[in-house]
Amino acid sequence: MSSLRRLTAACLLLAAASAPTWVQADAVEDAIEYRQGLMDIFSWNLTRMGSMVKGETPFDAAAFKGYAADLAAASALNFMAGFPDDSVSDESEAKDEIWLNKADFDAKHQAFKEATAKLATVAAAGEEGATREQFKEAAGACKACHKEFKK
Amino acid sequence: MSSLRRLTAACLLLAAASAPTWVQADAVEDAIEYRQGLMDIFSWNLTRMGSMVKGETPFDAAAFKGYAADLAAASALNFMAGFPDDSVSDESEAKDEIWLNKADFDAKHQAFKEATAKLATVAAAGEEGATREQFKEAAGACKACHKEFKK
Repeated sequence: MSSLRRLTAACLLLAAASAPTWVQADAVEDAIEYRQGLMDIFSWNLTRMGSMVKGETPFDAAAFKGYAADLAAASALNFMAGFPDDSVSDESEAKDEIWLNKADFDAKHQAFKEATAKLATVAAAGEEGATREQFKEAAGACKACHKEFKK
Repeated sequence: MSSLRRLTAACLLLAAASAPTWVQADAVEDAIEYRQGLMDIFSWNLTRMGSMVKGETPFDAAAFKGYAADLAAASALNFMAGFPDDSVSDESEAKDEIWLNKADFDAKHQAFKEATAKLATVAAAGEEGATREQFKEAAGACKACHKEFKK
């Protein structure tokens, strides 16, 4: 958090009794920043593995293993905490459908988490063909969720 | 791919050799997004634990354990990958000192990573006093790095 944001947070705490709406707005901003941070980490690792799978960069098994391990670890973080009930916002690419169908959204995240965990295991074993195949599964799980729940 | 898109792609490929700055700018933007994503995840978990330690919210050992585990997992991701040599930018709060003293920066991140790993272990054991103490260590490691390396 920057100094400015820290100061803003302190001011909001002081104002909390008289302006509960502001506090809520700050909590929503926090949740959006958190979930976008998670997406940035997913994207960083997925993009680099994707470049190798597509042949845009040479296939480097050791680097792939590292990206796959980090993606699996990031996918296992508390993802749903970034989508509290009051955090629909125009500032975010999250569709209303997330909150209208939370169970399906959660299930799709679980599928992504399982696919990335398997990718980490397969990549660690070091067989390129199987790694490429499992990458497609993980990327597919990613897209399946975006298709329905991302603007 | 339409003829127009094909042409655009071909032009970009031809331009790539003569305009490496464009390509590089995109890579820098990616690195900044990635490292800021990591910071957002650190901040999300640290802020919530900090509120409990400061007594702003009730101390919830189970919730604390979850935040501590996620912070430790996020701290163990490839942090240094977010700071490649060419990624100094006005868009970022990262000081030039990072690249001028990379070994010290790396050491400070290692200290943070170790402090958060220990916090996860202590929080999982469930003793509130020890957890509060170790939280201060982790938050201190966080601040030690920001003091020197964050604008």
